[in-house]
Formats: sequence, structure tokens, C-alpha cells
Amino acid sequence: MLKFNYKLILTLMGLLLIINGGFMLLALPFSIYYGEGTWVDILSAGLITALTGVLLRVIFYRKENKNINKRDGYLIVTMGWVVMSLFGTLPFILTGHIPSFTDAFFETMSGYSTTGATILTDIEALPKGLLFWRSITHWIGGMGIIVLTIAILPLLGIGGMQLFVAESPGPSVDKLHPRITQTAKALWYVYVALTFIETIVLMVGGMSFFDAINHSMATLSTGGFSTKNASLGHWDSPFIQYVVTFFMFLGGTNFTIIYLGFKGKFNRLISNEEFKSYTITTVVVTLFVAFSLWTLSNDSFELAFRNAIFQVISIITTTGFITADYTMWAPFITVLFFILLFTGGSAGSTSGGIKMMRHILLFKNSFLELKRQIHPSAILPVRFNGKTVDQNIAFNVSAFILIYLLIFFLGSLVMAFIGLDFVTALGSVAATLGNIGPGIGGVGPVDNYAIIPEAGKWVLSFFMLLGRLELFTVLILFSPYFWRKG
Amino acid sequence: MLKFNYKLILTLMGLLLIINGGFMLLALPFSIYYGEGTWVDILSAGLITALTGVLLRVIFYRKENKNINKRDGYLIVTMGWVVMSLFGTLPFILTGHIPSFTDAFFETMSGYSTTGATILTDIEALPKGLLFWRSITHWIGGMGIIVLTIAILPLLGIGGMQLFVAESPGPSVDKLHPRITQTAKALWYVYVALTFIETIVLMVGGMSFFDAINHSMATLSTGGFSTKNASLGHWDSPFIQYVVTFFMFLGGTNFTIIYLGFKGKFNRLISNEEFKSYTITTVVVTLFVAFSLWTLSNDSFELAFRNAIFQVISIITTTGFITADYTMWAPFITVLFFILLFTGGSAGSTSGGIKMMRHILLFKNSFLELKRQIHPSAILPVRFNGKTVDQNIAFNVSAFILIYLLIFFLGSLVMAFIGLDFVTALGSVAATLGNIGPGIGGVGPVDNYAIIPEAGKWVLSFFMLLGRLELFTVLILFSPYFWRKG
Repeated sequence: MLKFNYKLILTLMGLLLIINGGFMLLALPFSIYYGEGTWVDILSAGLITALTGVLLRVIFYRKENKNINKRDGYLIVTMGWVVMSLFGTLPFILTGHIPSFTDAFFETMSGYSTTGATILTDIEALPKGLLFWRSITHWIGGMGIIVLTIAILPLLGIGGMQLFVAESPGPSVDKLHPRITQTAKALWYVYVALTFIETIVLMVGGMSFFDAINHSMATLSTGGFSTKNASLGHWDSPFIQYVVTFFMFLGGTNFTIIYLGFKGKFNRLISNEEFKSYTITTVVVTLFVAFSLWTLSNDSFELAFRNAIFQVISIITTTGFITADYTMWAPFITVLFFILLFTGGSAGSTSGGIKMMRHILLFKNSFLELKRQIHPSAILPVRFNGKTVDQNIAFNVSAFILIYLLIFFLGSLVMAFIGLDFVTALGSVAATLGNIGPGIGGVGPVDNYAIIPEAGKWVLSFFMLLGRLELFTVLILFSPYFWRKG
Repeated sequence: MLKFNYKLILTLMGLLLIINGGFMLLALPFSIYYGEGTWVDILSAGLITALTGVLLRVIFYRKENKNINKRDGYLIVTMGWVVMSLFGTLPFILTGHIPSFTDAFFETMSGYSTTGATILTDIEALPKGLLFWRSITHWIGGMGIIVLTIAILPLLGIGGMQLFVAESPGPSVDKLHPRITQTAKALWYVYVALTFIETIVLMVGGMSFFDAINHSMATLSTGGFSTKNASLGHWDSPFIQYVVTFFMFLGGTNFTIIYLGFKGKFNRLISNEEFKSYTITTVVVTLFVAFSLWTLSNDSFELAFRNAIFQVISIITTTGFITADYTMWAPFITVLFFILLFTGGSAGSTSGGIKMMRHILLFKNSFLELKRQIHPSAILPVRFNGKTVDQNIAFNVSAFILIYLLIFFLGSLVMAFIGLDFVTALGSVAATLGNIGPGIGGVGPVDNYAIIPEAGKWVLSFFMLLGRLELFTVLILFSPYFWRKG
């Protein structure tokens, strides 16, 4: 029988629940300020969550018990996300605003996974306190992703994340070095600072403090929950839409290089291969869409450009905010956005999906494979950021993308079997697995996930978790190797 | 400047044209027997083609000139297919039955690549001589594929084809060994014998000799051109439909193991991993579709089963014959068939697409990648048919599938830009790249490619070539490495 350090695992779940409960209480001031009766329910939710956490810690905490191995690590990450999502449903359920547990779990998992897919048909009908809690799940999810990417995934050897760490300011990959903790803290400061700055700037643009802070949290986490039914389309202000576009772009940028940018090291920023590809992709696709839109419609070039850049960055960064229904622009733009659902932003950002780094390796390796064809005996490793990429990492990245697409195809089949039409089946899986939110078809930009059958909501919730945790972290729990000794 | 042995290349093109012209003349007896005036045009086409071939040989043949290198090999294969397709249009153009060169090239490339996609809206309006020529292009294509898979692709090191050869009865992979020529001949005998047998059995089932031989050639080559507008749906005979189903299954089977089966070595057949997966996939998917159809419709179980097994095998083997419109069965069956467009039959058969062998390696490797996650320092190679697969081959197979899907996604974007709707764009690319023929959407089972805009027909013709020649053979011509010295 394989042994896990279940006491430490449960102690850590306790810690997460205490933090989670604490964050719930942050919604209280809004509830009370707006005079909503639901504040009692939010208070109860927060207390239940935090006290469960305290209980777990009291029962299972052992001072000398600090040894965890890799296997514990996988369990902690996946269980952590699931436990947070389970308790995160409490505010929705206790207030009675999302009475169905399935719906509440979908919405909360969508929050923590920074997906932004919603089952709500009238978002504005929700009390402000709940809306704030909904946005906070995004923000916590984003913080979780940062620490995950910096400290945990590279240790577990997930899908090329070692490459990203090699680029971060200094941590050793061998063990949980104190410098990694420092790095995580530094990046959290960046995250908090950017959230603060965006809030201020949005208020300058005319947003209320409440709307500004909510959208700011949903932007930097590349989440996409809005407080308005029309998402960012609610504000007809070019200023606000450009500001959100800019911060979405930052949300999809490697936080390490933003940090270096803060410190004035712009050469590191410019020399970063992933940042270059991310920027070039965004610019090229935006210009293509902008000119297409301008040609196809009677819009001014500014409006076409603004809609194009907003939606392209929103989808590439896996945020999922909406200013216009891109599926109504032209059939080829729908196909283009369908493909964009598979891009993802930068590794080391809060964005989901396959991510630029993996696409770069894929392209470089495909190209090299042609060269290998001509020179079969030559050793031709992929290079990334000027360094040779270990063959095993390159192999792991290929496997990641292939498994991602495999899940996409089989997932679409499952969703179609549950009753969705062709385009909606493909769109819903691509949009949840990539942590984007809105997709194409029946779950397009102006639609929502309310129409998905009960079973489908669970399947898609699972895909959100799978995508957010870089597939392997979750999949490995379903492999016999994980549970076998040795 | 890089030197190619262009004299030998052109001599070989000449040989191909002579063979091609000869095959055209085989259509003459039908033209004359059915009293069609078009026999003069077919005769002209055959003579023009064959004489061009003779001319090339006379001008460029040098007795002592037999040295070709790998680069020449790539050029010969791709040019061969293109030159055959160019001259193969002559019967269609000279008779005036497909006056547009674009259409004629599409139809001919569809023939030689054993795709079976057609731009004809009324197939039955064509003279018999032309219909026979159309079927013969499939049959020649199938012969070409056999020699390609046995003798040429393994030498060029294309996408795991070495693995297949390791399983074939004895050839050495190092050079064009006399035994490879023997093997190719043996497999051609199998191909010819099976075509002959199917023709006889179909005639026993009530088909005319003309229809029987045409369908037989289109079956064993996994092509899919029919002489009837309703394809195999024209015959309401369960016997005929089951016979075609059986021979389509054989067409998608590795010809080497059919050969071994002929020789009574059934244990080799049963122990072959790819054959097992191919059979199991076919059975499982057929039963799933049959039971779904039976539940959803008022059909008898026999009819549901027959339609299911016919269409599932037709698509998996990339044949593309039709007895029923599978896109009307249920949305989830449409998604299922969309996924089947990416399977392909066995390596070493005439079928196209990704093929079972690569899927097996993909699944095994994905599963192993989870094990590697837990045991990062362990060396865990993929095993296939009881042997360890070289890491480079496993890597090449991953690259093949990734490039295949990349072309699918980008190709869909191009087709959508040309004007197709979402489903038709995806369907047309998947169906041509996989050499299937009918896809989903506007190019579904009861539709054809006449609606595709001119530019789109050229793009799809290119995808047929790309898919048929296992991607790399063609792609490499577009890489700078190919044209660079050294």
C-alpha cells in the first residue's frame, strides 16, 4: 500500500480553507454598504469555510511533520483546487442566488480556474456582495497560478515549465529554494500592484469603484467575469476598452518579465523569445481582423481596430471579456477565433491554454524535423531563449499538446453525446479546457453556459480544472503508476 | 548550387507517363463497347501521355546514370504524383466532360491520391470510358502507395514508416535491396488478386461487370469513386454492401499481413499490434453507432448495423463510399465521424490519414509520459510489436501528428477565408488531407466539391497530395534545408 502524508495534506487543505474563508469576508463590506440582506449568508459562508479549515489544522497538524514527496505534491495541487471550489460555492448556495449545486460548482470552478464561463443569464440581478465574491475567485485563482508556476509545476516536471523557470530571476529547479519563495512574493506584489493601478485608471475613465475593482481582478487573473450582462460592451468608452485591452495583455505576459520591466531591465523583456512571439502574434492577428472588419462593415477604422484588438487579446490571453460578438463578423473570423481558443498567453502569466512557449517549441521542432529528415544522423536540438532545450522537455511539450488536442476531440464527442450541436460541442470544450470562457456556437460571446445539460456542466468543470492545472497534474491521478508503489 | 540528377528524374517521369498513357488505353475497350464517340479523345489522351513519356526517355536517358541520392528521391515522389495528375486530366478535358482545368486537376488528384472527392454533380452522365479512367486513377494511386510504403518512404525516414517495414517480410532498411522489389511485387499480386476476387463476388451479387470492376478498383485502393450518384446506396442489396464493407476493411489492412494470411501464417496476423487495434477500433465504433442508430430510428437492427459498419469502415479506411447520410443520424454521430476523419487505416495499406500505427504510438507515449512524470530518471521507451521503438522515431511520429493537426487548423482558416462556412471548412480540409473524400458540412456524404470556389479546389488538391505523401515528402521541398548544400 502506497503511503501519502495525508495529515500534512489535510493540514494544507485547512490552510487553504482559512484563506478562502477570509477572502469571502472581504465581500461583506460591499454587501453591507449596498444594504443587501444577503450579507448574513456571506458571513456564514466565510465562517463555515474558515472554521472547517481551523478544524482540519487542529486535528491534523504535527509540528515535526514536514516531509512531502512528489506524489503528495500532485494530490495537494488538484485537491486544493477542488476543495476551494467546493467551499467557494457556499456564498452562491446560502444566498439562494445559485440554488443548484451543479451550477454553483461550475461557476466557482470557472472562477478559480480563471475561465470566466458563466451559467448566469442575468448577471446584474446578483447582489453586489456576490458579484464581488465571484470576481475574487478569479483573483485567488490567479494568485494560485503564480505560485503554482513558479514553485510547484517545475518541481513536478510539468509540460516544459522548467523552461520558464530557467528564465525567471534566479531560482534553482532542484528543490523548493528560499529564493523561489522570494520570487513568488515579488510576482504577487506585481499582481497586486497591477490590480490596484488598473482599478484607479478605470475609475479615472468613469467606472464606479465597485465595477473598477471587479473588472480589474478579472483582468489581471485573465478570468473574464464581468459585473454587467454586456461585459465590457456595457461601457461605450474607448478609453475604458483600451485600458482593459492593455491590462489583459499584461495579464497574459510572463509576470517575471513584467517584474524585470518594473526594475528597468527592458533588454531582458525585448530579448525574451516568448514575449516577442506573444507580441508579434497579437499584432499580426489584430491587424488582420481589424482590416477585415473595416472592409466588411461600415464601422470607422478606429472602431474596427478597437473591437479587433480587444477581442483578439481577450481570447489569446484566455480572459474572455466581450465588447462585440466576433462570431457575427464573418465565417472566416469565426474559424480564426476558434483557432485562437488554442493559443493561450505566456507561460508564467495567469493565462491558460497551450501557451506561446509550447507553440514556439512546436514550430521550431516541426521545422527541425524537416532538417532531421535530410540529415538523419545530425543531432539537432531545439533552442529556446538562446539555450539548448533538453530532449526530454521537448518530448514532454509535444506530448502535452497532443494530449491537449486528444482531450479536445474526445471531450467534444462527449459533449455532443450529452446533446450539444457540432459547433457548440467543439466550442464549449475548447473554451473551458483553454480557460477562456466564451467560445463559439451556443456558448459564443453573447451566450452563456446555462443551456448546457447538468452532466455537461460537470464534464466542462472537469475540463476547466484539467486545463488550469496543465493537464498532467490531474491526469496523473488517474494513472495506475501514481498509485503503485516504487 | 545544389545538384540534382535531373536527367534521371526526367527519365523516371517519362517512365511514369508511359505507364500512365498505357493505363488510359485500358479505358478504350469500354468506350468502344458502349459505342461512345469519346473513344477518339481517350485514345488521343493516352497517346499524348505515352509519347511525351517516350520523348523524355529518349532525350534524357543515359545508360550509366543510375545514381540518385535522398534529395532526388523526395523530388521524384512529389513530382511523380503531380506529373501523373497533370496528364491524367487529359481524358476529362479532351472529351469536354470536365472542361475546367481546375476541376479536372482536382478530380484527377483526388483519383491518384485515392481520396475520392468529386466535383461532379451527375456522375452517371459521364461516358463509361471516362468513368473507368476515373476508377483507374484510384487503382494506379493504390499501386503507387504500395511501392512507396515498402520501398521509398522508409528510406526517406518518413513518420514512423520504418516501423512498418520492420514488420514486413524481410527487407533491409539500409538500401533498395532486391528483396524489397520482391516484396513490392508480392504485395502487388495481393492487390491485383483481391481486386479480381472482389469483382467476381460483386458480379455474383448482381452487379454488372462494368460496375463491379470499377467499384472493386475504388475499394482496394481505398479511393471511393463510384459509378453511381448514390454511391453504394444505389444497390439496395445487403450482400453487395457487406461485400464492399469486407473488402474496404481489407483495403485498410497492412498488405504484408494479408500476404502472410494468404500463406497461412495467421499467428503473425493475430499478433500484429496494429491489426489488433484496427480491428478493435472498427468493432467498438461500429457497435456504438449501430446501437445508437437502432435506438434513434425505426430501422431494423440489421439495417442499422449494416449502415453503421459500412460507414464506419468506409471512413476509418479513408475510402469514402456512401450508403447513408451519416451527418443526418444525430449531432453526436456527426462529431464522431468528424473524429474518424483523423484515424486512417493501417500503415502499409492503401489508406491515408494519420493511421493506426501512429495513434498507437501516440496513446502509448502519452501514457508513458505520465509514468515519466513520476520517474523522471527512468528510461521508458515505447514498445511496438514487442520491440523497443527508437526515440527518434517516436519523436518523428509525434511531430507528424502535430504537423498534421497544424495543417488541419491553418487549412480550415484558409478555406473559411476563401468563403466556406465553419463546418464545411473543417470538414473539407479533414476529408482531403486524410484522403477520405466526403466529409461533413457542405461536403458531406450526399454533397460534392462542385460548390468549392476555384482557389479552394487548388488548396484542397494540395492537401490531398500532402496527405497522400505522408506530409514530410512534400513539405521538405518547401524548407530551405532541402535546397541548401551539405
